[in-house]
Amino acid sequence: MKKINTSPLSGMQELLPPAQATFNKYKRKIEEVYAKHGFLNIETPTIDRTEILLAKAGGETEKQIYKVVKTEETADDADQALRFDHTVPLARYVVEHESELAFPFKVTQIGRNFRGERAQKGRFREFYQCDVDVIGRGSLPISYDAEVIATLYEALQSFVKAKIKIRISNRKLILGILEGLGIAEKSAEICAVIDHSEKVPKEKTEAGFRELGLSDDAVQKLMQLLEIHGPAEIAIPALAFLRATAVDTNENFVAGVTELEKVMIELSALGLDEAAEIDFRIIRGLDYYTGTVFEASLPEFPKVGSIGGGGRYENLTGFFSDAKFPGVGASIGLSRLFYILNTNGLAHEDQEAPVDVAIIPVSENENLPAFELAKKLRKSGKKVDVVLTEKRLGDRLSYAAKIAKGGIVVGETEAATGQFRLKNFETGEETEL
Amino acid sequence: MKKINTSPLSGMQELLPPAQATFNKYKRKIEEVYAKHGFLNIETPTIDRTEILLAKAGGETEKQIYKVVKTEETADDADQALRFDHTVPLARYVVEHESELAFPFKVTQIGRNFRGERAQKGRFREFYQCDVDVIGRGSLPISYDAEVIATLYEALQSFVKAKIKIRISNRKLILGILEGLGIAEKSAEICAVIDHSEKVPKEKTEAGFRELGLSDDAVQKLMQLLEIHGPAEIAIPALAFLRATAVDTNENFVAGVTELEKVMIELSALGLDEAAEIDFRIIRGLDYYTGTVFEASLPEFPKVGSIGGGGRYENLTGFFSDAKFPGVGASIGLSRLFYILNTNGLAHEDQEAPVDVAIIPVSENENLPAFELAKKLRKSGKKVDVVLTEKRLGDRLSYAAKIAKGGIVVGETEAATGQFRLKNFETGEETEL
Repeated sequence: MKKINTSPLSGMQELLPPAQATFNKYKRKIEEVYAKHGFLNIETPTIDRTEILLAKAGGETEKQIYKVVKTEETADDADQALRFDHTVPLARYVVEHESELAFPFKVTQIGRNFRGERAQKGRFREFYQCDVDVIGRGSLPISYDAEVIATLYEALQSFVKAKIKIRISNRKLILGILEGLGIAEKSAEICAVIDHSEKVPKEKTEAGFRELGLSDDAVQKLMQLLEIHGPAEIAIPALAFLRATAVDTNENFVAGVTELEKVMIELSALGLDEAAEIDFRIIRGLDYYTGTVFEASLPEFPKVGSIGGGGRYENLTGFFSDAKFPGVGASIGLSRLFYILNTNGLAHEDQEAPVDVAIIPVSENENLPAFELAKKLRKSGKKVDVVLTEKRLGDRLSYAAKIAKGGIVVGETEAATGQFRLKNFETGEETEL
Repeated sequence: MKKINTSPLSGMQELLPPAQATFNKYKRKIEEVYAKHGFLNIETPTIDRTEILLAKAGGETEKQIYKVVKTEETADDADQALRFDHTVPLARYVVEHESELAFPFKVTQIGRNFRGERAQKGRFREFYQCDVDVIGRGSLPISYDAEVIATLYEALQSFVKAKIKIRISNRKLILGILEGLGIAEKSAEICAVIDHSEKVPKEKTEAGFRELGLSDDAVQKLMQLLEIHGPAEIAIPALAFLRATAVDTNENFVAGVTELEKVMIELSALGLDEAAEIDFRIIRGLDYYTGTVFEASLPEFPKVGSIGGGGRYENLTGFFSDAKFPGVGASIGLSRLFYILNTNGLAHEDQEAPVDVAIIPVSENENLPAFELAKKLRKSGKKVDVVLTEKRLGDRLSYAAKIAKGGIVVGETEAATGQFRLKNFETGEETEL
């Protein structure tokens, strides 16, 4: 009988051991790919100064951040809160440790972040984010954009058993178009409509543009832009409809096209020719990214939406330092992605027994030979459990079959002879050890 | 120029990438040993109900717990705080998911916990704990105690480059002695003196007992008890001085001796004959453990004190449920241990370059062949960085030498011929690829 409500708080992802094992496997694969691409891992504290976390305040963040109450013995400290992403603590870290880091700083952070937002299916208040970032000091070559995109793609591909597409755009290119069309002063509102355009019928997007008071010509050109997607060879020439307009000579537009082309060519060299395509509907939020933006999705599961993304930002540390640190980064929201894969039947096949061999002594007299056998098998790399409960042998066997791939019963004879038989719980097969 | 204080909050362990890599390596080794011993990993939420976390309130905990302020959108939730150990959330987890778990539940939890205590060297307010526990339903055989101790020992041994000793006692045995001597009503105070006895001169311990008003005979017997340490063959017969006293027939004493002997014999079978010894000074806190207690230490570094420990408890879930779940567990405080190993020069040799190969294109023209080469090397399992900065070639080379074990320069010739030379940055040796 429970004496108290023991459910986890709303919005928390609490997994049973088999699901946790799958989750850990995915996390490990992401870590491995990030390491293979030369990213160095760091961990920032979960608790940080509110002044740091809310330096760039406003919007949702301020409403969703969890503040932490100081204790009697920490009362002299600054005001504190839980980090809501990896980016702000990274900015603090880069400024704090600048002299001890080698730039470009290729960094990965994998850990839990916290947002106290309204509970929603598949959205968690405590969630894992798996980030990579390349931070330059002063400047950072555009080629790192391709490298970060390839890293994101390979990380996802290492455990997602479905086709993955990476769709790429460039915020400079978009800004250039808006400048060329003379509507840049409404760029935030226009980008918001573009950002939303995949989730609504075309007419609604068009109406959205019109509500902003754009001319027929501008609306038509934007609608045409949103139709363009595909490989660089198709998408870049498709921008021809902007020829002979003011857009065509706009500095941002020209720079954006050049960057986008370069990123696509380099992605080809990195093996993403089929996975990567240009899509001008990709915006990735409103006020952070300044160049390349990208988003990963599952074309066979369109309802799922984004499963990761990122982009280029002009300056990571503007709020903390006068020095300039441009960067490019990508992030996988693993808690949400894990939930999505499970609900779409894409994670199930990974669930296997966590223990290789369960050793079952017939009676307490065989505990010692069982322990010695366990020691040997562990040395050879096996995951081994010795089943020691006081239950009947039958109960011990069914417990063993639940947790392990195979089992060895150690009775008097086995203990005396040192001859053991391993039973495969799946096939029923027995083999001499 | 910094605009703001970017140091982490006091009491936080923030590592640079090479130290973080070493830390991660140790954590990984602990995870591997825990898995090899058949423990299943779970993760409980960092934030939990205050009602749960403080169910067994009082003492230090209540003063040190970090409460979390609910946000606008989570305002309807229960009062919340950050977990201060793994044990309380585990108790909640076991009661909540009882019907979905197989018992004995061998479980490991590795993650960050939080205690807002006074800042001290080597003590952190946010710290990693690496726990194993075996939880029985109703009962749990004593043999699991040996299994948990062996797991702790092997986990520590996998990365600590110094001799490790595990000292073991039994709280039933101690309680039996106190009962036999007729001083059990002061057991909490007496155990506190014993717990402290290693840190002070003998006279002080003796004085401590006398201050409690114990008889000369009782003080003498306790002082004798604290002198006993060594393997079971020596330590158990050394208890002979208690013969022909009321202790000798005390139920708890007899049970404690039997348990302790059994644990020592099984530890031998598990390979700990040299590492494990009995030591009656081991208490491990006051009101939690009820049988076996143990503590790991580094005999060559006596000042370091405990580097891990644990014990047997009668009931994990008493505050949450009427059902009984006895258990035995061990914990490594990795943040503190990492700090200790570093300050004692026991971690240094692990710090190696995190990247296997840095590929350095001579100019931007060689980016594509460099990316293609990176793709191949990564496929073969190597950790590869492509150095793309706009700096001079010399700067790129010295950056490469900082982050990688070896480097490959890709110039026009290499790009054209596909012939690459790998330079080992440590030895200066070059090899054809």
